[in-house]
Order: sequence, then structure tokens, then C-alpha cells
Amino acid sequence: MRLGTVLHQGRPRLAVAVDDGLAVLPGAAPDGRDFTMQAVIDGWPATRPALEVACEGASPVAVDTLHWLPPLPRPGKVLCVALNNSANKDRIMRGPSHPAAFVKPASSLIGHGQPIRLREHFGRVHPEPELAVVIGRTGSDIAHEAALAHVFGYTIINDLTAPTMRGEDTFHYRAIHPKRDDPETIEYVDSWVSYPGRYKGSDSFGPMGPWIATRDAIPDPHDLAVRCVHQGRLVTEDNTANLFYKVADVIAFMSTYMTLEAGDIIAMGTALKQSNGGQAVQNVDLTRFGGPIEVSISGIGTLSNPVERRA
Amino acid sequence: MRLGTVLHQGRPRLAVAVDDGLAVLPGAAPDGRDFTMQAVIDGWPATRPALEVACEGASPVAVDTLHWLPPLPRPGKVLCVALNNSANKDRIMRGPSHPAAFVKPASSLIGHGQPIRLREHFGRVHPEPELAVVIGRTGSDIAHEAALAHVFGYTIINDLTAPTMRGEDTFHYRAIHPKRDDPETIEYVDSWVSYPGRYKGSDSFGPMGPWIATRDAIPDPHDLAVRCVHQGRLVTEDNTANLFYKVADVIAFMSTYMTLEAGDIIAMGTALKQSNGGQAVQNVDLTRFGGPIEVSISGIGTLSNPVERRA
Repeated sequence: MRLGTVLHQGRPRLAVAVDDGLAVLPGAAPDGRDFTMQAVIDGWPATRPALEVACEGASPVAVDTLHWLPPLPRPGKVLCVALNNSANKDRIMRGPSHPAAFVKPASSLIGHGQPIRLREHFGRVHPEPELAVVIGRTGSDIAHEAALAHVFGYTIINDLTAPTMRGEDTFHYRAIHPKRDDPETIEYVDSWVSYPGRYKGSDSFGPMGPWIATRDAIPDPHDLAVRCVHQGRLVTEDNTANLFYKVADVIAFMSTYMTLEAGDIIAMGTALKQSNGGQAVQNVDLTRFGGPIEVSISGIGTLSNPVERRA
Repeated sequence: MRLGTVLHQGRPRLAVAVDDGLAVLPGAAPDGRDFTMQAVIDGWPATRPALEVACEGASPVAVDTLHWLPPLPRPGKVLCVALNNSANKDRIMRGPSHPAAFVKPASSLIGHGQPIRLREHFGRVHPEPELAVVIGRTGSDIAHEAALAHVFGYTIINDLTAPTMRGEDTFHYRAIHPKRDDPETIEYVDSWVSYPGRYKGSDSFGPMGPWIATRDAIPDPHDLAVRCVHQGRLVTEDNTANLFYKVADVIAFMSTYMTLEAGDIIAMGTALKQSNGGQAVQNVDLTRFGGPIEVSISGIGTLSNPVERRA
């Protein structure tokens, strides 16, 4: 089953995929209220039969005529795994031997078809096509073998990144540490630190959707083709098999530090294998070249967004 | 007026300060529902008179007998400004000429009195005593002179930081950039990047509260004493006058990149002027020494948390 969220007659409504081009908007839930994605997730799989009944008789609508919201408009957190592609390995001189992550704010998310809004002074902004996991069951200290049972489904995120801002928001500084041989006093340690608030979290930097494919619809999350197309030109042609840390690795590791809540999103890291065209995602400067920018993942769908340049 | 959120008979309830040691829990709002902090903020100042009426006749309860939640249990985002103390200036060799920030997930927040839960392998974890701004009115591109009118009030956050994890989650790598003289191809640039997901966002790394002091109760947010006390020993004795970027600077700058929504939190950066005792916050390793750890800000209150070491 594939589910999304649209704005319909001024209200967020659940949408259910009929096929790649058609959707139905189910009627009300048995309690009389609209189905919301969070409520469907919280009650899954018990919510499924009622949802199926509510779809019967609803008229299909063309996907591209709907106003799409992010499938979960306000997730508790969007945790993004960094540098998680096997192709990165030989360009990392020093890094952790586990997944590293940052948080993107919910206010950065936009739906399929909604404009990415960029300003000249943002500098370069490039796409990052990614598989995203939707957590279905809250947990911490989740065992590796139980990890996939915590997944509700999978969606697509375009984890837009502004490398110009990243450079600006990187500090080279003397960090204060306790002195090694006298921990009651301090010493200074030459360090680098970078802060992703702006370069990953600006408004519209998180196109997501249109669909969440439920877990049963994706037999293997590490056998999915990922394509990124800019203005009709294929930029990336990768596969989730190339993710270095797998979905279960990330859930097991991160959940020993932070509770993963139902409705949380985990962006798994950039698919960056270049297509034969020879360009990298880093060459696609959306501030300069505009859109549309499109990310497709097999079995989930296609996320496409125009670019709007604003003052 | 000072407002907080407590768990009372299994439900989140608003609490209103009587004085530093006493609180009342108001009765229901005119619509019959419990007051929630988000609803109070969304309707402010129109919600104020009804709230005052609902407090009349309620019996005062001792603050320390209540089970405190974060004043806003689930803010849209917690935006944390980094390295924002005038005392930092001479240890920054290279950095931006504007506020830089990261996002802490809502799942990391805990209330006053609730335990900070640490594990041996987290390595060092130190406190960061900070003034936090609570946004009252949603906006983007907020003019500097209008910035304070977007503030609902001020609270306290202890922005716990794990420098051991920070070191682990820092990459030295070759970033991919478009080639300067041939932007259709790429070149590698020696870079450093660090990801704050774990070291700032682990469970219980965001003690917050107990109170939000409404804006009218804080005549000048840059004239507040900030104290941090560890196991009865004064560590930090600073003042919000020493924040390098002021509240209005941060709101005006950040809102040109991201919408600041009603209920969002902005942590303004660490108060780090050492007390005469000679220790820095970086010497206070909570993993090793345990708690309690206390942050007080004049006019707002005292946030105190025990430390629980767990397996």
C-alpha cells in the first residue's frame, strides 16, 4: 500500500495510491475523523482494513492535480545519516566506524510538486537523492534482528544541501577540554566543527514524498534503484544496495542513543553514483540552474519539485 | 507570568508559578479542554485573562513535588546557536560573521527534576547553561526591529554536549565540489565536517524549564544572571549581556533562512564565564561525576536535574 498526504479543500487529507498516476482520498475513519498519516501509523496494521473500506467507491484523482504535503507534515524528528554510501569510503581520511547523523527541522519539509525556494545569497544548493525510513513503532535499544519490525514504510527525501553555507558555518577554533594530566583545569585543542542548521535546514530544503510505501510493499529495502534527474538529464543512477550502513544497522545503532518514535523519519544517506552523463549531484547547482529536480526510487515513486528563485 | 507543563494524573497539564517554590494548575479553558502551552502561545495575549481566571481558587502545590515535562513537550524545532559568547572570540581562528546553529530533536528534551540518563560509552558529557527564547508568533524575514515582538517568553535549557561523540562524528574527508574552472566536472577539496545528531541529540540531552517567563516579565533579555552549579559547587557565573549575537540579531538572521514557528525554541548559546572556583563547564563530566546539575537564570527560575548512569 502506498500512502501520502495532500491538502484538499483547505485540510490535510490522506491519499492512497491507485497506481503511479492516480490516487484516491479515503472517506472518514470509523470514529468520523479524517485519517491522518500519524494516526494510521500509530494504529497499524489494525488501521489498514478500515482504510481499505474507506477507499472503496472513492473516485481516483490524477496525482499531479493534487496539492501534496510531506507524507508526514510534522514528524517528531528527521534524522539524516551522513556520508553513508560505499562510494565515499576512499575519500574519508578520518571518520567514525558507525553511522553519524544530523537533524533536519520539520519546517524544512515540502511536498511533491511544491517549489524549492532559493535566494541568490544561499550560494550553491545541490540535491541529495535518498531513501527515507518511516518509523512505525517507538523504541530504544532496538536489537538488530528486530529493527525492520519497527519500520512502517519507506519514502523519498531530497536532502537539499547548501555547500556554500556549510563552508561559512564551519569553525576552526580552539576547543576547551579538560587538561589530560590535570582534569580540574583546561587546555585548548585545535578543532573543526560545522553546524548544519542553515545548510540542511532552511525552508524547502526537505522535499519528501509523494508516497510512503508500507513495509510489506518493499521486500528488500537494499535492492531499490535510485535515480536523480535534473531538467530531464539523468544525474544519478544508484541502488540502495550501495548504502554502507543498512537500515537495520542504523536503527539498531541510533536507538541506543535516542528513542526512535512512531512517525520519525530516517534519511539513509545520499545515492551518489553518477550516471553515464558524467555529472555529480554536486554539479547541479539549483540556485544557478533552477529546476525541476526529480528523485525516483523503484517501488516507492517519483518526487519532483520546481525551483523558484526569490529575492 | 511564568508557565510550565507538568504530568498530573497521567496527563500533561499547564502549571502557573505562584513564586519560586509554588505553582497552581489552572482549571479547564473556556472550551472545557485543558490549557496546553501550545494553545496558550497560539492565542496569546487573548488567552491570558481566561488563564488568570482559571488559576483563581486553585490550591498551590510545591514545585518540587510535581513531575515536570519540558514546558513545550514537543516544539516544532529547537534551534541552538553555537559559540555565541563574547568570550569565544579569541579562540575562533575562522568562523562565520553571523549566527550558526544546529537542531536538537524534541525527543532529547526532559523536564526539570527528570534524570539525565548517561552511559559509560557516551564518554564525556558536559552541561551548557543557556537562555532559550520561545517564539510566540510565526514569521519569516522578520525585521530586526520587529524581532522581539515575535517572542512569547524565555526559558532555560541545559544544552548537554558529548565532546567524545563530537570527536568521533567529525569527518576529515575530500568533499566533492564543481571544478572551479570547469563547473561541469568535479574536484576534491580537503574538508572537515561534524554531525551533531548524537552528541547534541541523545535522549535526555535537553533538560528544559521548569518555567517560561512571558516576555513582559523580562524587561531586558540581555541583563540576566546565568549560574551553573554542579553538586553544590558554582561553575559558571555569567550574564546574558555577554551573548555575542543578541536575541533580535538571531531572530532576524535565522528567519531569512527558516520560518520561525509559534512554539519553536531558540537556545542562545552557552554562558561560559567561569566562576572564581576556576573550573569550566567542560571540566564537569557528568558521565564520570554524576549530578545534580543546576542552571539558574534571574527572573526565570532554576532548572535542576539528577544524573542516572545506566547500562
